[in-house]
Amino acid sequence: MSAAGTGDEPRRSPKWHARRQEIVDTSARMFARRGYDATGIAELCTANGLGKGAFYHYIGSKEELLVAIHDRVMDEVMASADRVAATQAEPSAQLTLLGDELLEIIARYPDHVWVFLHEFPALSGERSEQFHRRRHEYERRVEVVLQAGVDQDEFRDIDPRLTALGWLGMHNYAYLWLKADGRLTAREVAERFGDIFLHGIVNPDR
Amino acid sequence: MSAAGTGDEPRRSPKWHARRQEIVDTSARMFARRGYDATGIAELCTANGLGKGAFYHYIGSKEELLVAIHDRVMDEVMASADRVAATQAEPSAQLTLLGDELLEIIARYPDHVWVFLHEFPALSGERSEQFHRRRHEYERRVEVVLQAGVDQDEFRDIDPRLTALGWLGMHNYAYLWLKADGRLTAREVAERFGDIFLHGIVNPDR
Repeated sequence: MSAAGTGDEPRRSPKWHARRQEIVDTSARMFARRGYDATGIAELCTANGLGKGAFYHYIGSKEELLVAIHDRVMDEVMASADRVAATQAEPSAQLTLLGDELLEIIARYPDHVWVFLHEFPALSGERSEQFHRRRHEYERRVEVVLQAGVDQDEFRDIDPRLTALGWLGMHNYAYLWLKADGRLTAREVAERFGDIFLHGIVNPDR
Repeated sequence: MSAAGTGDEPRRSPKWHARRQEIVDTSARMFARRGYDATGIAELCTANGLGKGAFYHYIGSKEELLVAIHDRVMDEVMASADRVAATQAEPSAQLTLLGDELLEIIARYPDHVWVFLHEFPALSGERSEQFHRRRHEYERRVEVVLQAGVDQDEFRDIDPRLTALGWLGMHNYAYLWLKADGRLTAREVAERFGDIFLHGIVNPDR
């Protein structure tokens, strides 16, 4: 979570949270266009219509902004993994749902995804570790679905870890073209990718 | 090509080209570790054991270095596409070969790939266009193989453009983990990805 969960922040109003979210989104757009290093606090303040003092009322540092941009997407991605797991559907259906939700999120947050995929090396120490931990958590969710499919003989005897990485690459990489290539919606892309991928791993003997 | 082909550069010795290549490789390592913006010409000179004058004897600018890093990989990727096309093998075999060669190149140049995938927005004008043109050329090569497979009924009636983008994502994204995950070689990963992808698109009625 971005602004909750560690327990040591002061209580903030819903209005504060909403304004902070706006700042995170505006800043994601700026970082995506000009780069994280090249964008200074002064420019972020101007873009958000805030003085420096007011800016720091919402965001502790530029690096914290990068974390918040990442969390904005990862909160949604993890929530989608929870929703999909809760369906208790068979693994093939879960994988299809995961792909559908992932591409919807990528299409909804192109700037955020761009920024955190390109700028995550700017995170340091504990923040960098948390970034990797959260990404790994989602990879594991995909892996678990694939493993369940193998265990239930719905999928062939594939390597769940490697297959998860291939599946993630196929979907995540869409951040580079999904918006620009307006020919197909996120849902249509997900349908076609899901179709190829499932044909690729399904157990033909079942 | 990096230092040939436009016809307006002075003739250079093989020794000059070899030294330039070294500088490109060292700089790729530095950019991959510290970021393109954060690495100055002075640091590049130190890392390469060169004075500023000598450095500019090999490289016109930092941006030219970024182009050279990109070309180093793209020259190999395009050469591999030429080799694969020359086999005139059936589309499924060509796709497998393309994947094998692409992952070999990504494993051989992790720093270069990292740098150009992350830093290409730093390219401006004609250089940016050339970057996109070369990437698009390779995408087209994959697309042509997929289209041939559809035309020859070796593949199902898939969308060649979208399928090429999915295939590329699955393979290109390996730059993030291929080296770190030493469990499998590039060749082994290519074999497994090729197996999944071909099962995914092959025409079952053939």
